Amino acid sequence: MKFKVLKWAEDCKARTGLLETPHGIIETPVFMPVGTQATVKTLTPDELEQIGAKIILSNTYHLYLRPGHRIIEEAGGLHRFMNWEGSILTDSGGYQVFSLGELREIREEGVTFRSHIDGSLHFISPETSIEIQNSLGADIIMAFDECIPYPATYEYVKNSVERTTRWAERCKKHHKNEKQTLFGIVQGGLYKDLREKSARDLVSMDFKGYAVGGLSVGEPKEHMYEVLDYTVPLLPEDKPRYLMGVGSPDAIFEGIIRGIDMFDCVLPTRIARHGTVFTARGRLVVKNAAYARDFSPLDPECDCYVCKNYTRAYIRHLINANEVLGIRLTTIHNLYFLLSLMEKIRRAIEGGYLLEFKQEFFKKFGYDQGS
Amino acid sequence: MKFKVLKWAEDCKARTGLLETPHGIIETPVFMPVGTQATVKTLTPDELEQIGAKIILSNTYHLYLRPGHRIIEEAGGLHRFMNWEGSILTDSGGYQVFSLGELREIREEGVTFRSHIDGSLHFISPETSIEIQNSLGADIIMAFDECIPYPATYEYVKNSVERTTRWAERCKKHHKNEKQTLFGIVQGGLYKDLREKSARDLVSMDFKGYAVGGLSVGEPKEHMYEVLDYTVPLLPEDKPRYLMGVGSPDAIFEGIIRGIDMFDCVLPTRIARHGTVFTARGRLVVKNAAYARDFSPLDPECDCYVCKNYTRAYIRHLINANEVLGIRLTTIHNLYFLLSLMEKIRRAIEGGYLLEFKQEFFKKFGYDQGS
Ligand SMILES: [Zn+2]
Ligand SMILES: [Zn+2]
Repeated sequence: MKFKVLKWAEDCKARTGLLETPHGIIETPVFMPVGTQATVKTLTPDELEQIGAKIILSNTYHLYLRPGHRIIEEAGGLHRFMNWEGSILTDSGGYQVFSLGELREIREEGVTFRSHIDGSLHFISPETSIEIQNSLGADIIMAFDECIPYPATYEYVKNSVERTTRWAERCKKHHKNEKQTLFGIVQGGLYKDLREKSARDLVSMDFKGYAVGGLSVGEPKEHMYEVLDYTVPLLPEDKPRYLMGVGSPDAIFEGIIRGIDMFDCVLPTRIARHGTVFTARGRLVVKNAAYARDFSPLDPECDCYVCKNYTRAYIRHLINANEVLGIRLTTIHNLYFLLSLMEKIRRAIEGGYLLEFKQEFFKKFGYDQGS
Repeated sequence: MKFKVLKWAEDCKARTGLLETPHGIIETPVFMPVGTQATVKTLTPDELEQIGAKIILSNTYHLYLRPGHRIIEEAGGLHRFMNWEGSILTDSGGYQVFSLGELREIREEGVTFRSHIDGSLHFISPETSIEIQNSLGADIIMAFDECIPYPATYEYVKNSVERTTRWAERCKKHHKNEKQTLFGIVQGGLYKDLREKSARDLVSMDFKGYAVGGLSVGEPKEHMYEVLDYTVPLLPEDKPRYLMGVGSPDAIFEGIIRGIDMFDCVLPTRIARHGTVFTARGRLVVKNAAYARDFSPLDPECDCYVCKNYTRAYIRHLINANEVLGIRLTTIHNLYFLLSLMEKIRRAIEGGYLLEFKQEFFKKFGYDQGS
């Protein structure tokens, strides 16, 4: 993987860049759609490409449990298994082990948990996480970390972060596949000194990229922005910075302004499946009865496949009648909306007018309270 | 609508033809995918077109209840509502009123029933069925009939068929939209004299096309073929003949050999959603564990989008993990399989080798017991 900063904003810490993986060149800042189970829910890889996606995220925890990373390895890796020729980032499984599985025990060695699917008992350590990710073969892989619940005491976070740093070292040591790039993850909850220590320790290990983890887990957004304010400046300027689990337009803007290059989130696809779409004028709950006779597109300002071909009334009918096509269409539109917003943001950074663009965007979109 | 027989087989009653509607020219024999709620489940109209579909069927009963035919009329008709530029046939609602709704009363005037969605009370008569179908604006519409349950006594069927014939007359009288072509439906259960009377009465009314209804409702297939043996010859040679609710390869072949031009059935799309696909060597339950490590296509002899791009192992994983993409892919493949079978059948009729082709097909496919 190579990364190059192309242009720094003058009025904030935003930058554009190029991230090159064995599966293509990605312009940053970038949003990565989430394909939890080796599929971005409801879409084909062709549709993802048409929407403009260059890199997607997939979940190690889910693929390890089902279908099993060995099957994916036998298929020739995740790219071939799911027929996606773009780039892939896999998370470490840490987040899901701590949030989805029934947690049994955290030890220095690793974590024992029960599968959320069938209750079977599993053990994942930094080494097994790397081995599973090596089998999956994503372009970017993540160090195994503990995702700390919010809120958490200083003592708890301190112990956890120190262990996560030791785990990061073990991941780095265990990772051998040069085609895959390993990122470290800064943790530390909302405690400034712990975030700083985590960042400094990880930077000293010289990872090729850094994520800021443990945010967007229920804390007020202002606290998240504060953490970014003091954490991002500690990360090397010449390496990509990835804010995990963030996908609402306001948090994306705030992250970019603070120097973040990469985002992922289930938000656009999840709200799509519940019948809510992004529009230039804010979120719209298209499944509402108000749209039963609305023959305009989801977003009159959008030029995606969905907005060029279907009406709110039709999509409302499909979702109301539990037809799969309905959530396919809202998913395509929401991802297109977010990816074309990223494109506009990149142009605004290049053109030196990001802050004005942000103001203009939210004047129409409204301040988006959702996460 | 225009219909022209192009070529008669020499060794059976099969024929090829061209059916021209305001939305295109359709080669017959044709299979019509079912789009019950203004969508062929899981697919976009673009995908239907790529699969080779020229005409689809949609259900008056469902659209009347949800979203309501008035909304579809306001949208500019069903073609525009669902963004489908090909031809559409709507059924009369009769079949669903009698099979899905909670039936309240059948009178000469019409039928009172409760919605299967919310239990609300509704009345449909031959006239309202035509009015609803006029609002929907399909290219071909069907007369309102009673779909007789199987088995039924001679007395019951006799009374019902006579009423269905009177209803057909009222439908013909009430139908005014010249862009839409009204078909009559031959009923009569498994009683030869009643089928013959129904056919003769309807033919004397001079419909532009004729359906054979009330078959594939649970009777042994041999009985269905017998009914076709004595019913189809009574229908005019120069008009299209449509066997309703039939979509298994064996019944399609048997219908075509007896002179049928049009078929519809939920079978290929329904079994797809349950993880079963057609292959040249018979049905395959791809969701079975046996395919977890099978990296071959659904059908190695198929050249559809799915078989060119995805493996059984991946599709099995998707279905097993309840991912929508899984049933999208099986649906595309199954419809492609059936539509390309129809294409091969048309070529076999033209080439004069239909019966040999049939034998060859089933030698590999096996005799398909499913309906
Ligand atoms: Zn759109
Ligand atoms: Zn296929």
